[in-house]
Amino acid sequence: MSAHTSVQAHPVSAPSSPLALIDHTAITHNLKRLRQLLARPAPQSSPRIWAVAKSDAYGHTLELAYPGLCGADGIAVLTLDEARQCRKLGWTGPILAMSAQYSRAALEDPALYPLHLILDDPEQLAVLQSVCASCIPHIWLRYRGRLNHAGLAHADYRAIYASLRTCLLRGHLAGLGHLQHYASSEEAQPLREERLAFQTLITDLPGPVCTENSAALLSDPASAASTAWVRSGIALYGVSPLAGLTGHDLGLRPAMTLQAPIYGIHTLQAGEPLGYGGRFLAPREIRIGLVRCGYAHGYPRGLSQDCIVVAAGRPATIVGRVSMDTLTIDLSRHPDIGAGAMVTLWGAPGLPIEAVATKANTIPAQLCTALTARVPRQPVA
Amino acid sequence: MSAHTSVQAHPVSAPSSPLALIDHTAITHNLKRLRQLLARPAPQSSPRIWAVAKSDAYGHTLELAYPGLCGADGIAVLTLDEARQCRKLGWTGPILAMSAQYSRAALEDPALYPLHLILDDPEQLAVLQSVCASCIPHIWLRYRGRLNHAGLAHADYRAIYASLRTCLLRGHLAGLGHLQHYASSEEAQPLREERLAFQTLITDLPGPVCTENSAALLSDPASAASTAWVRSGIALYGVSPLAGLTGHDLGLRPAMTLQAPIYGIHTLQAGEPLGYGGRFLAPREIRIGLVRCGYAHGYPRGLSQDCIVVAAGRPATIVGRVSMDTLTIDLSRHPDIGAGAMVTLWGAPGLPIEAVATKANTIPAQLCTALTARVPRQPVA
Repeated sequence: MSAHTSVQAHPVSAPSSPLALIDHTAITHNLKRLRQLLARPAPQSSPRIWAVAKSDAYGHTLELAYPGLCGADGIAVLTLDEARQCRKLGWTGPILAMSAQYSRAALEDPALYPLHLILDDPEQLAVLQSVCASCIPHIWLRYRGRLNHAGLAHADYRAIYASLRTCLLRGHLAGLGHLQHYASSEEAQPLREERLAFQTLITDLPGPVCTENSAALLSDPASAASTAWVRSGIALYGVSPLAGLTGHDLGLRPAMTLQAPIYGIHTLQAGEPLGYGGRFLAPREIRIGLVRCGYAHGYPRGLSQDCIVVAAGRPATIVGRVSMDTLTIDLSRHPDIGAGAMVTLWGAPGLPIEAVATKANTIPAQLCTALTARVPRQPVA
Repeated sequence: MSAHTSVQAHPVSAPSSPLALIDHTAITHNLKRLRQLLARPAPQSSPRIWAVAKSDAYGHTLELAYPGLCGADGIAVLTLDEARQCRKLGWTGPILAMSAQYSRAALEDPALYPLHLILDDPEQLAVLQSVCASCIPHIWLRYRGRLNHAGLAHADYRAIYASLRTCLLRGHLAGLGHLQHYASSEEAQPLREERLAFQTLITDLPGPVCTENSAALLSDPASAASTAWVRSGIALYGVSPLAGLTGHDLGLRPAMTLQAPIYGIHTLQAGEPLGYGGRFLAPREIRIGLVRCGYAHGYPRGLSQDCIVVAAGRPATIVGRVSMDTLTIDLSRHPDIGAGAMVTLWGAPGLPIEAVATKANTIPAQLCTALTARVPRQPVA
């Protein structure tokens, strides 16, 4: 063997894929933190919290996140299938299904209740009115607002509210509330405008209000505290929804750590290329670690030069192009780190997912929800 | 209801998520096409073809791709777990496990054989030599080359070959070959250099050669035809590995079509914003289709303005920002397309995955392998 090579064996006991470690106690902590923020302006009547768990709990998996999520007052999902999964996990509290796609048959499952549904289309009224008397949902009217995704238009909102109010008073609904998804909850002035427009629209209409999300709650807890229910997704998982801040800055703890094993080590000489396309040329002798994680696991292919990873608690940088199953890191400063060591790709102290997302020109929610089925999720030991 | 709104109901029978439709007959077609290309220069002794099926058959799923993949001479995967999955599907032919991470215990499973393994580290020799006599693998020495991922360095290659040649002659190996992954198989001159460097290194060493991948095969079938085994992944799935060309240009048929349902329709007035951040403002009245597909399904968040989708066979463009579960399209020219219709996001005639990848500043392999578990894969009816 030449000194040039310095190949090290792969310990076969090391994991052969990346792992997402899920810490449900972080979710419990984050929920407590949000409750603290909401209690300050309204100690007697804090709003209730929907734990938003769509996209398989933002990629954390419903199953592993559940012991944390179950501390919330309700769980918000997209589909009735996800609602059923929550019931299987033992959840008996309220569930909000946000997709507004439901059939009469699907709604006539008593196990789904207490069930909260979105109404954003007057034709859904017929479905609701035909459901058997033992399955009575709570309805939230969704206002389309400036987001202009699904929701009732301004011109229709009050008339449809009036129809549903009649249903409510006749006992055909368990409740009737007002709901909106803000388009710009991360920006103070547009957020104020969106709040004001909706408050003006519903000013004299009775019913609970659910408008505030993680970003709105964290940037303006007093406004959030004046509503009946807040919805929190990304913050519950310990991630900042506010640009320029990390979850840590906001008193949150990350619930996901993405790790991957080093499966090989070798040394590049100055001038040698690395990776597909050969765009990276070693500027000096570099000790390379081959890490088993790539774009087929959901790691951004765009991340290469200068993105940081953490190896044995110390920073190292990605060099060369991220490929399907492999990324390559510069371990020149870490001669003691060998094959079999685990590298943290986000979620370590000093390596928040927010920083990785910024580097990848995206948002943290994209990173955690887009991990593929090839990344096993495991509870933190 | 005001004319402004024109809400249409969601047909509850429509799928509630995107679907990836998998056509295994396309894989069969593509395999035949590759065999034709290889047979022209070498009609008597065409190389055999490894169907590369790592990353769950490039996101198509091993199970649904298998009826096409099984027309190949061997199936190449990354891990022994994937190899076992191939055996469960009924594959009795050769399997190549490319990760080179294996223990003695894992190799002593007769069901895995005929098994081809990579050796890229001399310390793996000890593992191989300790395996029981009834489990004899074929070994491929992997040359590190200009890719500089896992593989033997130039200075070590011939000495390690000599050790293994002795094992082979003693009957401890089923075969001993030479394997390389090119760094720049899409570019003619670097590819020629990589080929020549490896040929020079192994010129007098007996054994089969496996160096050519989809790009190398398609750009230079004569060179590929002179080797023993070619490896094809992306081309088998009907996708061009060559920049500026589509699979169709190369006589290939796409094996995946990504579709998603329209779950709502409404009309934006000129000047109204759309989507998170409100960056898109309707330049005129626009009929919007809400499509159930977003970045949590693996669709690129970066795709927004001007990316094409196909609705009922006709092109429409994405407007506004792709969100977690929704993307929005301009249906102004298609007043007849309503909620419940399926939209094709890639894989339709006129909408090859190559075009979407170019728009997203990535490669097609990233798109198909990074679809998440939330996208059901279904066989084409």
